[in-house]
Amino acid sequence: MMRTRFQGVARLVRHKALYRSPCLLPRVQLASAFGSSTESLVARFCPEKTDLKDYALPNASWCPDMLNLYQEFLEKTKSGGWIKLPSFKSNRDHIQGLKLPFGLETASDKQDWRLFTRSIQLEGQGYEYVIFFHPSEKKSVCLFQPGPYLEGAPGFAHGGSLAALMDETYSKTAYLAGEGLFTLSLNIKFKNLIPVGSLAVLDIQVEKIEDQKLYMSCIAQSRDKQTVYAKSSGVFLQLQLEEKQSQEQ
Amino acid sequence: MMRTRFQGVARLVRHKALYRSPCLLPRVQLASAFGSSTESLVARFCPEKTDLKDYALPNASWCPDMLNLYQEFLEKTKSGGWIKLPSFKSNRDHIQGLKLPFGLETASDKQDWRLFTRSIQLEGQGYEYVIFFHPSEKKSVCLFQPGPYLEGAPGFAHGGSLAALMDETYSKTAYLAGEGLFTLSLNIKFKNLIPVGSLAVLDIQVEKIEDQKLYMSCIAQSRDKQTVYAKSSGVFLQLQLEEKQSQEQ
Repeated sequence: MMRTRFQGVARLVRHKALYRSPCLLPRVQLASAFGSSTESLVARFCPEKTDLKDYALPNASWCPDMLNLYQEFLEKTKSGGWIKLPSFKSNRDHIQGLKLPFGLETASDKQDWRLFTRSIQLEGQGYEYVIFFHPSEKKSVCLFQPGPYLEGAPGFAHGGSLAALMDETYSKTAYLAGEGLFTLSLNIKFKNLIPVGSLAVLDIQVEKIEDQKLYMSCIAQSRDKQTVYAKSSGVFLQLQLEEKQSQEQ
Repeated sequence: MMRTRFQGVARLVRHKALYRSPCLLPRVQLASAFGSSTESLVARFCPEKTDLKDYALPNASWCPDMLNLYQEFLEKTKSGGWIKLPSFKSNRDHIQGLKLPFGLETASDKQDWRLFTRSIQLEGQGYEYVIFFHPSEKKSVCLFQPGPYLEGAPGFAHGGSLAALMDETYSKTAYLAGEGLFTLSLNIKFKNLIPVGSLAVLDIQVEKIEDQKLYMSCIAQSRDKQTVYAKSSGVFLQLQLEEKQSQEQ
């Protein structure tokens, strides 16, 4: 039952029936849908004070290229424009006090839930990445260093590990740029393999927001832009997160 | 240098220059390219006797749906047709004695290399999956149960975790069905979220092999086929693995 609801939402949007059938979507406030400012989304998503561990910080495994480019972007955050996104263990930590719409409610048990791209916690072995977001230009940069646990062809990152990180960077960008919540499609063309331990830079741009969908593009390449690893496009569905009722908090 | 070679290969294939420029591809035996039978590929890929741990075996975390369908397919392997693929920790284990063409040689250090989709080794927490392959019909079935380390939206598998497993299942199918080695493209349409801990069944079919490329399709759905999770297509480049020289073995 639960799993049919996203399908229902997607179908409704596709058939433009969303606005005609409010009875099917009882909790959505259509009048204010997608009215949250990027600033308020960022403020909630990137709390200034938190006890949560931020996994998007340098560690001893980062290669010099990754560390240097991280410092460059960190400088850019001081003069405004760019924001460094924190990266917590689970999306649950990012959206505290909010819940998914349409009854996509989740078990509240004590399982060790982990965001897929933060599931390997040994420094340097799995995903090392950090995302910088530019609110006014609706674009992101993700610095990515794959570790040996992300192997596909011997010595190189698995294509699926890059696909997953593209999806993840799209998802954070889509949420902050326009309350994009669910991936509708992901199309990737692979050009070159990424050697394990080296840096790949993902440049993501929101191309347009139309019919409750965010259309984005991404190019993943070496720092010097001489080697393109992959190009992709992604489409996300806009859905507004809801405030939790006080008794649920 | 290393990373430009795959690009070179892809470009060569695209421009049909592969056969005109043997000097660029010194180690490829064009006369026998893609001449390996599926039987010989399977025999090498699925050794009858090995000390390597097979991660595609049932464990206590498997849900009843996953276990039942696994048993059904295991029965089908006895009457011929289907083959259960073993799943080792690294692709290095599958291709022992072989190496990648075009100088895509890899570090031989003692790092703990892990295939991305086998990197989380705690039972039930990450990927649980098993692939069955049907050589004569060039199709595969992958039984997939995502654990809580594969989370995206709270309580559901990350879209990227499904994308990565599609790529992985495509890659094993492409290799055994026709020496497909590298993902050229991956296009996914997501329809529904997969609840963590439940079973998704991926049906993969080789649609055609043309111009050194394998074209494949996949549908991921619930066991009863009432819920489609995603549909995708994938294109892989054919490249022949080379025998290692004896001094390299």
